[in-house]
Amino acid sequence: MSYAVEPWQLRWQGLSVGNLHQTESTFALSNGHIGMRGTLDEGEPRGLPGTYLNGFYEQHQLPYGEAGYGYPEAGQTVVNVTDGKIIRLLVEDEPLDMRYGTAIEHERVLDFRSGTLRRRTVWESPTGRRVTVRSERLVSFTQRAVAAIRYEVEPEEDLQLVLQSDLLANEPIQSRSSDPRVAAALDAPLVNDFTMAEKSRAVLCHHTKVSGLRMAAAMEHEIEAVELAEGTTPRTEIRAEDDLARYTAAVDVKGGTCLKLTKYLAYGWSGQRSTPALRAQVEAALSGARQTGWEGLLREQRAFLDDFWEVADIEVEGDDELQQALRFALFHILQAGARGETRAIPGKGLTGPGYDGHAFWDTEMFVLPVLTYTVPDAARDALRWRHSTLDKARERAEVLGLKGAAFPWRSINGAECSAYWPAGTAAFHVSGDVAYAVQQYLHATNDEAFDRDEATEILVETARLWMSLGHHDPHDGFRIDGVTGPDEYSAIVDNNVYTNLVAQQNLRSAADAAERHPDKANASAEEIAAWRKAADVMAMPYDELLQVHPQADNFTRHAEWDFENTPAEKYPLLLNYPYFDLYRRQVVKQADLVLAMHVRGDAFTAEEKARNFAYYEARTVRDSSLSAGTQAVLAAEVGHLDLAFDYLVEAAFTDLHDLHENVTNGLHMASLAGAWTALVAGFGGMRDHGGELTFAPRLPDALTGLSFRMAFQGTRIAVEVRGGEATYRIVDGTELTTKHHGEPITIKAGEPVTVPIPKCPELERPRLPFGREPRRR
Amino acid sequence: MSYAVEPWQLRWQGLSVGNLHQTESTFALSNGHIGMRGTLDEGEPRGLPGTYLNGFYEQHQLPYGEAGYGYPEAGQTVVNVTDGKIIRLLVEDEPLDMRYGTAIEHERVLDFRSGTLRRRTVWESPTGRRVTVRSERLVSFTQRAVAAIRYEVEPEEDLQLVLQSDLLANEPIQSRSSDPRVAAALDAPLVNDFTMAEKSRAVLCHHTKVSGLRMAAAMEHEIEAVELAEGTTPRTEIRAEDDLARYTAAVDVKGGTCLKLTKYLAYGWSGQRSTPALRAQVEAALSGARQTGWEGLLREQRAFLDDFWEVADIEVEGDDELQQALRFALFHILQAGARGETRAIPGKGLTGPGYDGHAFWDTEMFVLPVLTYTVPDAARDALRWRHSTLDKARERAEVLGLKGAAFPWRSINGAECSAYWPAGTAAFHVSGDVAYAVQQYLHATNDEAFDRDEATEILVETARLWMSLGHHDPHDGFRIDGVTGPDEYSAIVDNNVYTNLVAQQNLRSAADAAERHPDKANASAEEIAAWRKAADVMAMPYDELLQVHPQADNFTRHAEWDFENTPAEKYPLLLNYPYFDLYRRQVVKQADLVLAMHVRGDAFTAEEKARNFAYYEARTVRDSSLSAGTQAVLAAEVGHLDLAFDYLVEAAFTDLHDLHENVTNGLHMASLAGAWTALVAGFGGMRDHGGELTFAPRLPDALTGLSFRMAFQGTRIAVEVRGGEATYRIVDGTELTTKHHGEPITIKAGEPVTVPIPKCPELERPRLPFGREPRRR
Repeated sequence: MSYAVEPWQLRWQGLSVGNLHQTESTFALSNGHIGMRGTLDEGEPRGLPGTYLNGFYEQHQLPYGEAGYGYPEAGQTVVNVTDGKIIRLLVEDEPLDMRYGTAIEHERVLDFRSGTLRRRTVWESPTGRRVTVRSERLVSFTQRAVAAIRYEVEPEEDLQLVLQSDLLANEPIQSRSSDPRVAAALDAPLVNDFTMAEKSRAVLCHHTKVSGLRMAAAMEHEIEAVELAEGTTPRTEIRAEDDLARYTAAVDVKGGTCLKLTKYLAYGWSGQRSTPALRAQVEAALSGARQTGWEGLLREQRAFLDDFWEVADIEVEGDDELQQALRFALFHILQAGARGETRAIPGKGLTGPGYDGHAFWDTEMFVLPVLTYTVPDAARDALRWRHSTLDKARERAEVLGLKGAAFPWRSINGAECSAYWPAGTAAFHVSGDVAYAVQQYLHATNDEAFDRDEATEILVETARLWMSLGHHDPHDGFRIDGVTGPDEYSAIVDNNVYTNLVAQQNLRSAADAAERHPDKANASAEEIAAWRKAADVMAMPYDELLQVHPQADNFTRHAEWDFENTPAEKYPLLLNYPYFDLYRRQVVKQADLVLAMHVRGDAFTAEEKARNFAYYEARTVRDSSLSAGTQAVLAAEVGHLDLAFDYLVEAAFTDLHDLHENVTNGLHMASLAGAWTALVAGFGGMRDHGGELTFAPRLPDALTGLSFRMAFQGTRIAVEVRGGEATYRIVDGTELTTKHHGEPITIKAGEPVTVPIPKCPELERPRLPFGREPRRR
Repeated sequence: MSYAVEPWQLRWQGLSVGNLHQTESTFALSNGHIGMRGTLDEGEPRGLPGTYLNGFYEQHQLPYGEAGYGYPEAGQTVVNVTDGKIIRLLVEDEPLDMRYGTAIEHERVLDFRSGTLRRRTVWESPTGRRVTVRSERLVSFTQRAVAAIRYEVEPEEDLQLVLQSDLLANEPIQSRSSDPRVAAALDAPLVNDFTMAEKSRAVLCHHTKVSGLRMAAAMEHEIEAVELAEGTTPRTEIRAEDDLARYTAAVDVKGGTCLKLTKYLAYGWSGQRSTPALRAQVEAALSGARQTGWEGLLREQRAFLDDFWEVADIEVEGDDELQQALRFALFHILQAGARGETRAIPGKGLTGPGYDGHAFWDTEMFVLPVLTYTVPDAARDALRWRHSTLDKARERAEVLGLKGAAFPWRSINGAECSAYWPAGTAAFHVSGDVAYAVQQYLHATNDEAFDRDEATEILVETARLWMSLGHHDPHDGFRIDGVTGPDEYSAIVDNNVYTNLVAQQNLRSAADAAERHPDKANASAEEIAAWRKAADVMAMPYDELLQVHPQADNFTRHAEWDFENTPAEKYPLLLNYPYFDLYRRQVVKQADLVLAMHVRGDAFTAEEKARNFAYYEARTVRDSSLSAGTQAVLAAEVGHLDLAFDYLVEAAFTDLHDLHENVTNGLHMASLAGAWTALVAGFGGMRDHGGELTFAPRLPDALTGLSFRMAFQGTRIAVEVRGGEATYRIVDGTELTTKHHGEPITIKAGEPVTVPIPKCPELERPRLPFGREPRRR
């Protein structure tokens, strides 16, 4: 069982109950505000049901065997909110349940252009009654609070059909926590505040017990039967309890004709607004949706996506399954970020409960680059979320004895939720990552309002963090000690090169911003000078003996990992070896120095990149889905095009092939983004150091052609690579100046530029850890 | 309110309810098997009641907000067992309670020569009835399972007195844990298995719910009244419930005469033996105690202590309070270790529930040196406990992916209980410390049986641990990375000098032992050669710029702590600053490199010691009670005698002056031992590198004379220092060869050797962190 390979959709044929938990994630729909896992309409069988509202969480105590000063006390976990997807069908007296009777035909399709999940089932009940069910579901990109479902049933013969359409709160789910207190907090987390059911509309309002957030869910129905059985009329009713609202329609349908139900859903939540206000909000959204109508919603959805694909589409020639995977990736990244609007983009988007629904640095370093160059407003909104949490970040810095703002390692509302500080709080690079993304967005958009109103404050406050985290030392310059870099198989290290380089850029960006907006920065000339000075003497460890950069002080002096005696089933290593053993060895979970060579490639020579890349390739096990995309970028830059392709493939298929065996918890947004990065920054060679956009395209043997699109400072361009040449073209705009393999070029509207691609050096494939070669296609 | 200064006892006059929690610890009695806090006979008022059996614990789950591979799952906490100390008095109808009526006189005395806790109270009841109560309590050094109490009441007029003597299980205590699950596990931890009460004897048997350990407590009474009121006879009764046995005696006593109750107590526990067997054991112990009788127990106790003081006493001239504190320290160390017999010596001994009753490396590096040179059998027994846990240590090493044996950071039964691995599991030096203590004991005793039967296996298994923890590196030799040294304000560091030097000695000791006992070591010549080679090229970081040893790689490159802006109330720092901030700075909780310079003083030159000492003095805050004694030793060696004296004073008075404001949790055994170390290794200059015993005595200005005693290879000696001379004398034995300030001397029985002491260099007092100078006397 697997997905059919098609360019613009993801199709799964047959039922395969055992794979439902996977397809619920891959078929999830979201607009960044509402998320609905791809559960069957009838609710069961199911893997892990889930409906999420971005930012809506329950709080619980974080337990510690031995507590410490400054440890976060409260954890946050995304709540499975009121489920509005459920539409059940009774065929005469038999419930449609795919586990019973016979599914003569069954397929589900996620359509990247219509932005809908379609289902078609021909089902024969245990007693031989046959119906065709078609449904289509969308979470609207254009009407942020709205989702809608069209459900159609066509009986072969005259049959009585009963449809039940629910809003269901506190859906029972098996606890995912081993801590009984956490499990208790998340068992039935919603408390009813208000219930309304009238005609075809119902509203349920709830709040969470501890975090005290309020939410409302509403549904409205339109029913239409082409032909009724003689002498019958449809009978509908609606009722509501605390945790359930149910619309029921009993209809005697003529064989061969169709019963159609349209269900409109609206969701809203707030930590501030009252229950009546939330009710009003969802009822207003419902009215808007009905006014637009089902066909209207479909049209808006398609128009939104048409625009997206114009600026974001990637085409590869020579690998149809990869083509599908790339569009799948882009579609889900759009879904995660499109309408978040000052909410975080969680590590799993809104596709599952993994990582408790928390957002990490993945957002800024992996997901936002995609959005910045395709849907920049979505990138800006995600950064506005960070800006909106600055007070929490300042408080956190103060608790930690630091200046400025320390963004959390993991959070839903902006407060630190990490219960293991060596891999959480100590990973201060997250604040540098936020600054990096801010600077990247500014370069890519010249968004002056954001620069003035949000960016400057973020850059300045994170620069202050670095000044208090680091110090000038007579041995080495400006050191940043005792932190954890991106590689989670090291912790509490000194002078992590990635962190230091991100901090260096952060300090310089802050100095520039403070000079642009002195009224917003509130920084003295002395303070600004101190930032520049620290940046200028930033410590950068180098191993003279081995002629490589240690990813942090001493790294290259540590013991090697015994890869030859590490069997495949012992990966990921962190589940089978203690932290202390990982930390003291040269084993790398995910690109760290290699990531530094991507995002701060301006700080390394080509020779250093080649030597470092070979060194870290031999020690990187990719136990994190954040790694392959970055390794692809550096592999391509250094000249290992086939290896880069293998990494691209790994990133692109992480979820579709469930490589980490946890797609049930949701999709890996950063890995999906990594596929884009592997193509655009890897084979496209796109870089933006210092705001200068450059390209250095090259094709691996596995592809005969590649084209990608992006936007830069309002200009939309397309880059096509084929047959030893690259063609640069303006899609929307007038002119763009860039570089092709180091040579300046200027592209004008209607005047594509085609340039030859320099030959790639012939290199030996680098040695990788035993058993950790990416799968070849 | 404070203790009266007397040379051989600790006396507290007056009641001072607010200080009861302190005096319960300082007045605690123990023989290393049974521990009884110094609660008043009548049980209340009280601070924190406690009766402990060494090794008897309850188990509970260790919670983690984010769990990791190899984290210990089970915690252990010492249990407050059945309380047999309680004897209540009813004077006519008024209970003797120090909170009511008037305490006309009240004093309690801990007598270091009798080994008893005496109390004398003249009490007038609220209605004006006056009685004199005298009690004396002992936990027998000679009869390990036995404690006894003599309780006497003398009424001024004819009065009816009722005595109630209890065994009370599951005494209600306020929970000390913030984790509700831990609190629940320790609330009423004992489950009754057996109850018996007959005549004047009662037995209660219980077991713990989770750890499943069984215990028995028994009491027996003798009552004697000098003169009864006319026409009356004493009425006694005994009864027992699940958690309570009570002997009651109602007696009409003639005014001015005395009612005497002798209470014998016996305790036993086992994880293996049955309840009937335990009952039999305690009843047998009771019979033995009655046969010896109260006076006999007193005589045995005094004889045991006379022998101890002959080999262990320290006399100082010029500071009477210090004299008292030193004997108090020695008395409590003896109590902690005398009859432990293959049980651990916990950090608090058996004086309180602090640290959950766990044993740490303190035992080997601080407490055992005292015992090794005074009561070597007790040191051997504590090391036998470590040997008895080797299987658990091997299992732990295996879980951690290591060879050999990894002793736990904290434990009661030998299994790791640390829930914060950077300051627990990573502190692998504990295994080197055990090996160090083993080697020190062997040198001090030439105990061939122990060498063969236990020492060799410990040394070899810990050497194997180091071989798997460290590695040969082309840059630096044999490195040991990612560990935590003694200083708990650093963690997960590379090449901690202390750890490396202890490992170096461990490897060499193991090689020697394996060659002495090839049948026990089971080590090939290649393996032994590998140990020696690793030891020979052990990495030893050195800062060429600053000309000091960093306590670990990079330490001297870290940021300095801002001591000037750290107010006094922010100490101890770990309660007011996050670990990450402490770890990344040059702030030292407790002697680390300085401890290395003590125990591996042979690895440093005199100049290095002086420079290093000054460097670390300026950065050591002594937030641990393990530090002052060691700093005294090096201060004295380097020549800062007055500073050494200040540190001695701090170590000696840690508990008597409650310097850490936590003596309620029990006494700091390592600090008490540190006082001995400060005197014997500090002002006595005693060293034993490589088994060679040497001295280099010197007096600080504050003392006019000092003499100390110790045993070495069966010979008991005394060293007296006074007026610029030192006198060495054999107390028991024939001859001893040693060195005095580097010059060889030989002492023979009856021929004391007096030698002049070389002048001390005049040195400037080193700079200490702002506000952290030890208090001057």
